[in-house]
Amino acid sequence: MHKEKIPKLTIPRLSLYYRALLESRESAFISSEELSKLTQFSAAQVRKDLTYFGEFGTPGKGYRIVELKEVILKILGTGRQRNIALIGAGNLGLALLAYRGFAVQGFRIVAAFDSNLSKIGKTFEGVLIRGMNELPQVVRNKNIEIAIIAVPANVAQEAVNKVIKSGITAILNFAPIRPKAPKGEEILNIDLSIELERLSYFLKRKSKKV
Amino acid sequence: MHKEKIPKLTIPRLSLYYRALLESRESAFISSEELSKLTQFSAAQVRKDLTYFGEFGTPGKGYRIVELKEVILKILGTGRQRNIALIGAGNLGLALLAYRGFAVQGFRIVAAFDSNLSKIGKTFEGVLIRGMNELPQVVRNKNIEIAIIAVPANVAQEAVNKVIKSGITAILNFAPIRPKAPKGEEILNIDLSIELERLSYFLKRKSKKV
Repeated sequence: MHKEKIPKLTIPRLSLYYRALLESRESAFISSEELSKLTQFSAAQVRKDLTYFGEFGTPGKGYRIVELKEVILKILGTGRQRNIALIGAGNLGLALLAYRGFAVQGFRIVAAFDSNLSKIGKTFEGVLIRGMNELPQVVRNKNIEIAIIAVPANVAQEAVNKVIKSGITAILNFAPIRPKAPKGEEILNIDLSIELERLSYFLKRKSKKV
Repeated sequence: MHKEKIPKLTIPRLSLYYRALLESRESAFISSEELSKLTQFSAAQVRKDLTYFGEFGTPGKGYRIVELKEVILKILGTGRQRNIALIGAGNLGLALLAYRGFAVQGFRIVAAFDSNLSKIGKTFEGVLIRGMNELPQVVRNKNIEIAIIAVPANVAQEAVNKVIKSGITAILNFAPIRPKAPKGEEILNIDLSIELERLSYFLKRKSKKV
């Protein structure tokens, strides 16, 4: 069906192609030019990415949308629900818990954990906040595959260690550290300060040009 | 001092070097090997990045930490405060407002905007929520350079248009769309669903190997 390994930078583009396809309900086919227009990637880039799925475009018509959607879902592994544990029920954690957008893509926060005794036992958005000691058992029982780390920097490595020990291998980290982890773990870091510093660099260069 | 243009992917590494330097208070000098160990980038990568700053390392000793910090601040343009407007005071927006980490790096949310009448006029974390009609004036008066977009997908492009019209050129977007913008605008997109789909792809590949 498709080559074994797809380059890392192609994966987020697949997500965006899929989203564009969801909005293209008027026709049965879509051309690489149309997909390029919808996603703002170049048509050459789109065509190159689509070669990973094998040759199923129809000359003069483009790609069958139903088929393309199915293939992308299969590659991303998003055709089924993936359960998430939220570590940290502070401001950011609760915002993520309240965010309904995940569920649409098949991701669901099914359990939340905090070390703050005043939070443990409370329920937010239908999810019970538990103590960290319950993590290993809940991960097993609820078939949790992904952890979201939303704790302060100074306790983030400890939280990551506990998550890894519980058997989770995929982590989305919001704490402003780069956690250490053994091979075989996949950690994606979302670091807001770094993004703001990128913008600052852009503003700096821009002001020089003026 | 340094070459005019630094590659885009180097910028976030500079942020991480700076953070590592803040924690290295025991010595006056740091070697590329130590910086590599602290940041988990290869020593070769560190040395390559540091060449952008000119040759101010001391053979056998490494880089003078004070000097290195100063140069990075200068390049990133983070030596002074940058004011931010928050667009959208929902769950995520309020979490960002409450997040104290920004201020340390010199970023500060100085104004917040929402279109919801029940929110306008209220104060969160010392910041007044205003109507979007006040945006242009507040951007001018408060010298705002960056906007954070934390509104739902269906109103995100409209919010971005208003932000651009108000004179802001640097945008951090949390809405799950890729906003369109004229040249000269810098938009960084943080898309949680796409990050989760990357993790899903990792889990998919991993389960195949077992």
